[in-house]
Amino acid sequence: MFQFDSFTDRRPFGAVQKGTAVTLTAQADGAVTQATLVIMPDEHCDQTQSLPMTKSPNGYTVTFTPPNAGLWFYHFELQSDNGRERFGAVGGGFGGLGQLYPENVDVVNYQMTVVTAFDPVPAWYQNARFYHIFVDRFNNGNADGHVNAPKENSFLYGRKTDRPMYIRGNDGEIIRWDFYGGNLTGIQQKLPLLAARGINALYLSPIFQARSNHRYDTGDYFAIDEVLGSLHDFKQFLAAAHQLGMHVILDGVFNHVGADSRYFNAVNEYSDVGAANSLDSPYASWFSFKRFPDDYNSWWGVKDLPAINKDNQDFHDFIAAKKGSVISYWTDLGVDGWRLDVADELMDDFIRQIRSTLDQFPERVLIGEVWEDASNKQAYGKRRQYFEGGELNAVMNYPLRSMLIDLTNGQLNAAGFVRQLMTLKENYPTNAFAFNFNNIGSHDTPRILTMLDGDRRKLQFIVSLFYWLPGVPCLYYGDEAGLTGGKDPDNRAFYPWGHEDQAVLDIYQIALQTRIDQPALAAGAAFFPFTFEDSFGFVRQNDTQTLVVLANPTGSPQVLQDPHAELVPKSLRALLPVGTMVPAGGVIWQQI
Amino acid sequence: MFQFDSFTDRRPFGAVQKGTAVTLTAQADGAVTQATLVIMPDEHCDQTQSLPMTKSPNGYTVTFTPPNAGLWFYHFELQSDNGRERFGAVGGGFGGLGQLYPENVDVVNYQMTVVTAFDPVPAWYQNARFYHIFVDRFNNGNADGHVNAPKENSFLYGRKTDRPMYIRGNDGEIIRWDFYGGNLTGIQQKLPLLAARGINALYLSPIFQARSNHRYDTGDYFAIDEVLGSLHDFKQFLAAAHQLGMHVILDGVFNHVGADSRYFNAVNEYSDVGAANSLDSPYASWFSFKRFPDDYNSWWGVKDLPAINKDNQDFHDFIAAKKGSVISYWTDLGVDGWRLDVADELMDDFIRQIRSTLDQFPERVLIGEVWEDASNKQAYGKRRQYFEGGELNAVMNYPLRSMLIDLTNGQLNAAGFVRQLMTLKENYPTNAFAFNFNNIGSHDTPRILTMLDGDRRKLQFIVSLFYWLPGVPCLYYGDEAGLTGGKDPDNRAFYPWGHEDQAVLDIYQIALQTRIDQPALAAGAAFFPFTFEDSFGFVRQNDTQTLVVLANPTGSPQVLQDPHAELVPKSLRALLPVGTMVPAGGVIWQQI
Repeated sequence: MFQFDSFTDRRPFGAVQKGTAVTLTAQADGAVTQATLVIMPDEHCDQTQSLPMTKSPNGYTVTFTPPNAGLWFYHFELQSDNGRERFGAVGGGFGGLGQLYPENVDVVNYQMTVVTAFDPVPAWYQNARFYHIFVDRFNNGNADGHVNAPKENSFLYGRKTDRPMYIRGNDGEIIRWDFYGGNLTGIQQKLPLLAARGINALYLSPIFQARSNHRYDTGDYFAIDEVLGSLHDFKQFLAAAHQLGMHVILDGVFNHVGADSRYFNAVNEYSDVGAANSLDSPYASWFSFKRFPDDYNSWWGVKDLPAINKDNQDFHDFIAAKKGSVISYWTDLGVDGWRLDVADELMDDFIRQIRSTLDQFPERVLIGEVWEDASNKQAYGKRRQYFEGGELNAVMNYPLRSMLIDLTNGQLNAAGFVRQLMTLKENYPTNAFAFNFNNIGSHDTPRILTMLDGDRRKLQFIVSLFYWLPGVPCLYYGDEAGLTGGKDPDNRAFYPWGHEDQAVLDIYQIALQTRIDQPALAAGAAFFPFTFEDSFGFVRQNDTQTLVVLANPTGSPQVLQDPHAELVPKSLRALLPVGTMVPAGGVIWQQI
Repeated sequence: MFQFDSFTDRRPFGAVQKGTAVTLTAQADGAVTQATLVIMPDEHCDQTQSLPMTKSPNGYTVTFTPPNAGLWFYHFELQSDNGRERFGAVGGGFGGLGQLYPENVDVVNYQMTVVTAFDPVPAWYQNARFYHIFVDRFNNGNADGHVNAPKENSFLYGRKTDRPMYIRGNDGEIIRWDFYGGNLTGIQQKLPLLAARGINALYLSPIFQARSNHRYDTGDYFAIDEVLGSLHDFKQFLAAAHQLGMHVILDGVFNHVGADSRYFNAVNEYSDVGAANSLDSPYASWFSFKRFPDDYNSWWGVKDLPAINKDNQDFHDFIAAKKGSVISYWTDLGVDGWRLDVADELMDDFIRQIRSTLDQFPERVLIGEVWEDASNKQAYGKRRQYFEGGELNAVMNYPLRSMLIDLTNGQLNAAGFVRQLMTLKENYPTNAFAFNFNNIGSHDTPRILTMLDGDRRKLQFIVSLFYWLPGVPCLYYGDEAGLTGGKDPDNRAFYPWGHEDQAVLDIYQIALQTRIDQPALAAGAAFFPFTFEDSFGFVRQNDTQTLVVLANPTGSPQVLQDPHAELVPKSLRALLPVGTMVPAGGVIWQQI
């Protein structure tokens, strides 16, 4: 018998700073005669160390001090009555209680995240409750409802209630862009309403001049898109938001630009000499042509989006130099942070440069678009360093979205959910987990109500967890109003002003207001999960309050009995409200 | 030798009333020993008559009195030194000088059009200079430019200068209708400008409630489409037009309706029980279902346009009963006439009923959409009776358009043009030819400037002839402003307000103003064509004035010498300005 649970048997738990002594303690009986910790730095298996473990009354123990930052991977080698065996993490790469592997080739390593430094997180961000606005689709602030400065060869929706659609040519390419005409003044007008609903931070989809309605095809990084309004409108909006105590982050798209941009200028919309106009263009070095001017590297082969050469320092400085850059210009105007589009496409050095420029201004936040566990994300054959210090504060927490949806739809059980969530907690630096940028839907996913087949009971379940689990919640505009929709563009319908689904609105309102009223539900409060029957619960605790939340994803009532509460500190474990019944599909909380 | 020219050797010339004695005189020399007129009523070759011709000093003559209306077809049988021969019209069915045919099977007959009565034509119409407005594309009369009441799931163009396009699904079906938002108030605002440009009549594309931008898919025959405005707007517009001495005709679409209509109601947009809702619908008899409710007869298989059963008297009465019908309702409001969409799809009895209802009101005009020579058009295996009396006043003169374009582009020579035009003059009743509804472009053809490859010299040539030949000219909106465009929808761009091509505008303005200033160029003035060199000319004459027009379609100057002027009365022939030089590609006129 040999047992090791990374959630409980490794001290300290989770990510550590380099130079920290980490003690691993396994349980074993006499059948195991020898145990060795096999640990290697990421991508350097030639530097694997084998550290003999010390026998103790109940098993074996060893201490390891990682000398530098990065990921370390480990498992255990055992000598026992069964001969030579290995003990590693369960398949899928999740932490927690592992398993024996007879063959070396099959063993799955545990991960230990080691950072250079733990990044601090701005106080406002720790307490943020975000609202994600796809700006063309939220609100038109013009009294007569006209769309500002419609673009050449664009289409405007006849009614705000029309379903969005792409207008495509024979090859699937978009031949006319479609606009509803939401704008900055429109958002400004709704700020008091959003504030009243408990929102205190906004994440805006791109707002710089571009051809498309989503504006991920930047045309000019220094201009507000005319359809959205003027620079003056933006300043007014930002001032109004700050006045209400709200913070605003922008979407930074720094991996590619629009073919129709000041920099590439494929269709000569700009008077600048763009890279597509001449190889003598000041922007020529940003791009790679296979054949000038019409065969060039582009994002996922989308010709509309010429890709920036990843190591182009000239572009990096254009975006992120300390003075005069895109980041410094807008941040200096008062922008409170950035969400980096396709962060996995940006070089670590570039992200560090952005971070460094951002740090000239106090209390700014940097969030990355990463779809997987960002602690061990690989891109282009290289491990990424988002969280080793000096890079991202948080990432878009799509893994949480996936596991919440799977749990709600019955495709992941309570124990599996807890193991997956604890793995994130283990792998991420403390702040990255506590203040990760949580979502249950975005402009890149189907609407949450659609993912749940319109089931409002399920919606209440998932929304409650979304707002009561650790992390900074970011609500996708219109989800709270009952919007449905499949994948893009169906998930980008216009906000249904005056036709909100009141029952759905109530679900969001109750969950969010509870989070506001109960400080132990705030992003950074402690989080200790446990399971019982086919359900789970978690204790949340801050300086002033301790709560327990009980979640029953099954179709019948379940009673809190005999919880598996190893992750809950003993003092709190005793307070669990044994005997409490949780209704089918319910999430309940109580102060303990 | 035997010669017969139907343009000069048959008296009277052209279409005749039944019971009129018609004398045919051929020239022949002694080689022809016997000549017989072989003549038969249309579609009754069993009633063929052979009338021996009388020898005269220069040939043969015969008189025939058609006993009833319809078409009569004839040729001549000859006995000569060469044996038995026939003399008939030249291939292609054109009148004029014919040819000999050795074999009976090859002979081409001449046509004699015989009518029951010659329909009068309203005085205003005789003097009309029409402007054809595709209403969505002309002018938006709202001060702020907003589009009235956009339809569900429709798209509005971002800019008026955008090129039109259809938004189609995978099967080519239109999935969203596109609107620029032209409306009735917009037309009303431009009436003074149009009047100043010499326009005194308007033909509007359909204005009744419908789903599409063209509105040939009628949804409700008794409602003005909300995008265009209200009934009040229509009345105001009509009053304003009449106030300026303008007349207005509407587009009557009586062969099919919209699937989304009060009558069919496929998508339940209307509260009525439509034919697609129940076979007990009051409209059920209008349609034919192969399988209720989704497999039904439709126009050209377009499911959006369920076809009306051609012989449905209930529908005919709905459209054209003396009281309470569509025709009587709108005509009573002051509409000056109708253009019947796809007139070749409507039964003669139905057209006669419309005519009869229209005749309750004085001075109303009825025009048909027919693409070919309407005198001998066959549809569904049956000869049509548009012009035998009591039906149409005129048709859309697409044959003239074709021959003008062919002439201008060098694909038809001057003699061929005169023969084709004279054939129309011969085949049509006098008024139908004199007041036919001429066009050189419509919403169903490429723009004229595009047909001429943008050549303004050619444009000046064709526009001059368009305005100076017999017939009622109908200018397609925007042609005069220099709009270009290929086939539908490219030919339906928005009128380029403020960006008119002044040179093109001048071409139209000069031709139209000349027509106004010179009364002999009016629709009904006499028309006597002749040819010279590779050019042609024509004399036009009314009570007060005689003019000659000389047209040189070639690339070099040509001088009027030795004209072939058999069609010009002798007294006028002597006045032809022999020696006049016509510049290359020029059309000139002078009073004689």
